[in-house]
Amino acid sequence: MTDPAPPPQLLDVATKVDARLASILDEQSHRWRAVDPRLSEAVDELDRMVTSGGKRLRAAFCYWAWKGFGGDVARPASGNGSGPNGAEPADPDGQIIDIGAAFEFLQVFALIHDDIMDDSTTRRGTKTVHVTHAERVVERGWRGEARRYGDGVAILVGDLGHVYADQLVGSIGGRTRELWDELRIELNLGQYLDMRSAAAGTLDLETARQVATFKSALYTIVRPLQVGASLAGQTDPVVLDQLDRFGRPLGRAFQLRDDALGVLGDEKRLGKPVGDDLREGKPTELVAWALAGADGRERAVLDAIGDPDLTSSQVDELVQVLRDTGAVDRNEAEISRLVDEASAVLADLPVTDEGRTALAALATYVADRTL
Amino acid sequence: MTDPAPPPQLLDVATKVDARLASILDEQSHRWRAVDPRLSEAVDELDRMVTSGGKRLRAAFCYWAWKGFGGDVARPASGNGSGPNGAEPADPDGQIIDIGAAFEFLQVFALIHDDIMDDSTTRRGTKTVHVTHAERVVERGWRGEARRYGDGVAILVGDLGHVYADQLVGSIGGRTRELWDELRIELNLGQYLDMRSAAAGTLDLETARQVATFKSALYTIVRPLQVGASLAGQTDPVVLDQLDRFGRPLGRAFQLRDDALGVLGDEKRLGKPVGDDLREGKPTELVAWALAGADGRERAVLDAIGDPDLTSSQVDELVQVLRDTGAVDRNEAEISRLVDEASAVLADLPVTDEGRTALAALATYVADRTL
Repeated sequence: MTDPAPPPQLLDVATKVDARLASILDEQSHRWRAVDPRLSEAVDELDRMVTSGGKRLRAAFCYWAWKGFGGDVARPASGNGSGPNGAEPADPDGQIIDIGAAFEFLQVFALIHDDIMDDSTTRRGTKTVHVTHAERVVERGWRGEARRYGDGVAILVGDLGHVYADQLVGSIGGRTRELWDELRIELNLGQYLDMRSAAAGTLDLETARQVATFKSALYTIVRPLQVGASLAGQTDPVVLDQLDRFGRPLGRAFQLRDDALGVLGDEKRLGKPVGDDLREGKPTELVAWALAGADGRERAVLDAIGDPDLTSSQVDELVQVLRDTGAVDRNEAEISRLVDEASAVLADLPVTDEGRTALAALATYVADRTL
Repeated sequence: MTDPAPPPQLLDVATKVDARLASILDEQSHRWRAVDPRLSEAVDELDRMVTSGGKRLRAAFCYWAWKGFGGDVARPASGNGSGPNGAEPADPDGQIIDIGAAFEFLQVFALIHDDIMDDSTTRRGTKTVHVTHAERVVERGWRGEARRYGDGVAILVGDLGHVYADQLVGSIGGRTRELWDELRIELNLGQYLDMRSAAAGTLDLETARQVATFKSALYTIVRPLQVGASLAGQTDPVVLDQLDRFGRPLGRAFQLRDDALGVLGDEKRLGKPVGDDLREGKPTELVAWALAGADGRERAVLDAIGDPDLTSSQVDELVQVLRDTGAVDRNEAEISRLVDEASAVLADLPVTDEGRTALAALATYVADRTL
């Protein structure tokens, strides 16, 4: 596996978005601390998760679509506001960086809530919110059930992230607002289907693809691209459809890479435990292919998927079956094919050369990343 | 205790808002069922909670402030959009009914998440979302922990309600959007303080009032009033401050009534168990007053507050102490005093006679309601 560094087009956006996120969180923390120091604890906990990592991919796809469609030279499209709270953006890309920050707040909201649902202990190399606050009950000798309290705090901290995300979109209207609302509905419904399928043991290929379409293709790539284009004033349905045809295969490739890293990746680099997808019984194409290609003995091994108490040697055995059935190779081949499919659409996209180069670099990165 | 019927000014708004909520949920359910019948399950669960009750108080305060400030005859204020998705409202009060529906989606979002945090089994006379879906795991023999799954579904269904709420506010900008964002932050921080105080056993008067300010005064009354005024084009800081001075005492009265009903109310009428506030150790003024006035024996009884396993005879004993210490009487006296304080501000509010009459009727209702 290659080990590509994040492209500069990603790092540049991440630096600007990080600065915006930090400034909002700092302002909010000070503001609420002045009212009651207990209130700012929730803001500070959100801050901890926002600043502990994150590749800022969604912000970058959005930014480069915006710039690729001339957003840095065009007048804002009709119906778009002038930045949150009615203030003029301080710099030419102020609005698009605000939207990038909105995507990142939304992602942290989704991760914090997902971590409760999956009972994940580690995220971005740090302790998850619900685990941190469950431990606080024990440490401080507080009343009530530690788990219930930890989950409750994480629900609220996530909800707060959702509000800040939306506040940054502010009064932006028109097609951009429709896309923003749509992607939030898709995110929630995709996560519902993911969780329901894991519980019901629905591990077929169609379900895995449906989940990947909602959670990865639409939420992570297609919608950020379309929001960026729309903010640049590009709302031609033909062009938005091209972005869909570029983003869907790329989003599937992103998910297939995620699935592979989830069972074969480096735990330290990922910042989360390897094998948890198998313990949770997540519907993935990798598992669906293994099930389709398994003989009797292999099928018996695969039956352990979804057991939350899988030992690491059982995980190793499962990974061996994923390899032996050809599922791992097929996953890699499919990633390559999907990136090629996306690249062909990108070649025809009516964006600037700079935009095309940046989107190509992002595409390579999401498909080949090792964390 | 009097038993006032909801005033017609509340029922009229509720009827219109209910129709709007039903139409959105019906459209969304059909839409997602066509994509994948499993996706619409989350929408249908939200529908179940939205349609199982709710007084639509926030929508009514917002509506009558809007109408009282001439919203039905004024042009929309600058910066306000033309309804969600850019469509013109179908009728003169289309936009304000959309906002009313937004408040009700937001309230259902908050209730669904609160019910997880409090592990409440019943809400609006029906089974809570997290309990319903935990049971589904058992009924269908699904994998994984039932509680984790039920909580997860409820988190997502709540999140979906939050998105629909915000979608209805849509591209409305300016002061209205600021108020909408502000109240959502206040709602989350207030709930955090409430939960934290219950866990830490912080049952002092100041904490109880801080929680009531955020969760009841601001979120339930002041902000809905200000949003309505702002939508009618009334954003004069002096007037918005008057609404604050009307809404804060009324909101505190609303909370004190809620606290009283939570320990003295009729379980069947309330649609939720009596005594749970005591089991959860919620910080209330009622409890703070009892603690301040208790002798040694009474204080020993009050020490049981926050024990999740309180029996109904223990609850009865606690209620007796709340009465004996004068806390119940003081709560009633304080409600009367607060309503008088609010009424005095209302008398000077520059609204139409019709608006003043409606707001007075709502004020009486929230303070004297029996459910």
